[in-house]
Amino acid sequence: MINRLVANIKKTQAPIVVGLDPTMKMIPEQIKKKAFSEYGETLEGAGEAVWQFNKAIVDAVYDLIPAVKPQIAMYEQFGIPGLVAYKRTIDYCKEKGLAVIGDIKRGDIGSTSEAYAVGHLGSVQIGNTTCKGFDEDFATVNPYLGSDGVNPFIKVCKEEKKGIFVLVKTSNPSSGEFQDQIIGEKTLYQLVGEKVAQWADDFMGDSYSYVGAVVGATYPEIGKVMRKVMPKSYILVPGYGAQGGKGKDLVHFFNEDGLGAIVNSSRGIIAAYQQEAYASFGETNFADASRQAVLDMKDDIAQALLTK
Amino acid sequence: MINRLVANIKKTQAPIVVGLDPTMKMIPEQIKKKAFSEYGETLEGAGEAVWQFNKAIVDAVYDLIPAVKPQIAMYEQFGIPGLVAYKRTIDYCKEKGLAVIGDIKRGDIGSTSEAYAVGHLGSVQIGNTTCKGFDEDFATVNPYLGSDGVNPFIKVCKEEKKGIFVLVKTSNPSSGEFQDQIIGEKTLYQLVGEKVAQWADDFMGDSYSYVGAVVGATYPEIGKVMRKVMPKSYILVPGYGAQGGKGKDLVHFFNEDGLGAIVNSSRGIIAAYQQEAYASFGETNFADASRQAVLDMKDDIAQALLTK
Repeated sequence: MINRLVANIKKTQAPIVVGLDPTMKMIPEQIKKKAFSEYGETLEGAGEAVWQFNKAIVDAVYDLIPAVKPQIAMYEQFGIPGLVAYKRTIDYCKEKGLAVIGDIKRGDIGSTSEAYAVGHLGSVQIGNTTCKGFDEDFATVNPYLGSDGVNPFIKVCKEEKKGIFVLVKTSNPSSGEFQDQIIGEKTLYQLVGEKVAQWADDFMGDSYSYVGAVVGATYPEIGKVMRKVMPKSYILVPGYGAQGGKGKDLVHFFNEDGLGAIVNSSRGIIAAYQQEAYASFGETNFADASRQAVLDMKDDIAQALLTK
Repeated sequence: MINRLVANIKKTQAPIVVGLDPTMKMIPEQIKKKAFSEYGETLEGAGEAVWQFNKAIVDAVYDLIPAVKPQIAMYEQFGIPGLVAYKRTIDYCKEKGLAVIGDIKRGDIGSTSEAYAVGHLGSVQIGNTTCKGFDEDFATVNPYLGSDGVNPFIKVCKEEKKGIFVLVKTSNPSSGEFQDQIIGEKTLYQLVGEKVAQWADDFMGDSYSYVGAVVGATYPEIGKVMRKVMPKSYILVPGYGAQGGKGKDLVHFFNEDGLGAIVNSSRGIIAAYQQEAYASFGETNFADASRQAVLDMKDDIAQALLTK
């Protein structure tokens, strides 16, 4: 799957992942009105609105991008019907040829991490039958519990040729509270990054590993260091756009081959029509606004990489 | 909700939480056969089997215990139908007067943690209507992202009078890989524990805080230290039984008032009939075996506390 992700990135010339993280406030009135008229102002109504919103955006941008990253929390907030919309979104994006990164940030003790891995990336045995739960292509993983919380994901990934991105340095303002703490002569995120590099070495695709990392765009200097610590890992870079990261901040996350990083934007793309720069599209043409925002982001990153 | 949890513990005289973490291998043949005959060997069949298994166990033990802790991974592995079983289990346990601790170990950047908090503990706004997603009473939270990953949970808990347990020191063998790292003169889990103590101070119930912590039974010496670091926090103690923790290991997790800790057992209770000690109950009477295992666990802890 990492090979397919790299191939998709080369084909689209866009190291971009669109974060499908919808909130009710982002969804245009016409979509909500239709969904609520059918299902009421219920969890089901919200799930339907989310799915229709996602579908329109995916239809508008799928040919430009290699991957999407639905953030499962945004679906979980609507309970079961929200998760039904999550699953429909995954299936639809895969049909469209996109790599799907489930931003689930799971991590637990061994047997429990195994259940998460099986449910999101693998197959579960039911009687004599094997079934698939969510079936994303990649998942994000939280490392706080150590190796035996991560290894079950790697085991399932090896069986399924899928991948993970381990949280190393997250994009949020307080990420340093624990992640930046100094242990000996290193920070905690460096220790985690070194562990990621070991896991990555042990599970290589053609040019990059199935084991990647998350490092926030909001910490470009850290990106520069971690790029070297984890040379074979793809870095998933959140925090571009709405969270403050800019194209020029991103260059250090890439390797000399122009690969090695994939930059996420969520609100900046899917709610583009609500921003001044794209307001002229109007609420009705929200998906066209998202397409333009993808083109602009692609351009911003390409320009930054040119001047690297 | 922390007040109700403490009241439930006093009433039952059992600082015990039953971990409802079913796997297919634990579920008796007669339940699987019936579920599969109705829904096939499908995710739906698995979900039905899980729900019927849980219901029988809850019916057999609810009068003895204050709380249950379903581990959401065990449901997520069966996709949407698994999560339907999770939700049915929550609702049924609440009907039976039990406090429900959702073992979800979520944690993300602020806006995303807010969505998890809303979905699991709060209400979500849909048009002019507020709806509830999963509606557990408590949730477990992963602290790796720092305060702004935890604060949204606390905010929702304040609105709803619900609580959280923050991962401090987990029960698994490799928990020390990052959690035990020395920062200055403290370990990472101590730093996290001190943060928990601050959050706890700021959000008190009658005698204990709405902000609790997770410290594994498998590390009793750490329990002793952390008990003092977080005097007002309830400690949720996993790792008893199947993971190796014993009654005598648990005494240090409790305060002088005999309160302050609640000990989880999952496999040890719900799959008791598969253990030699309870084999005489047979597969048909699996729920009676679970009841006996609860009584024995209650006794083991009471004895240990007497000799403290």
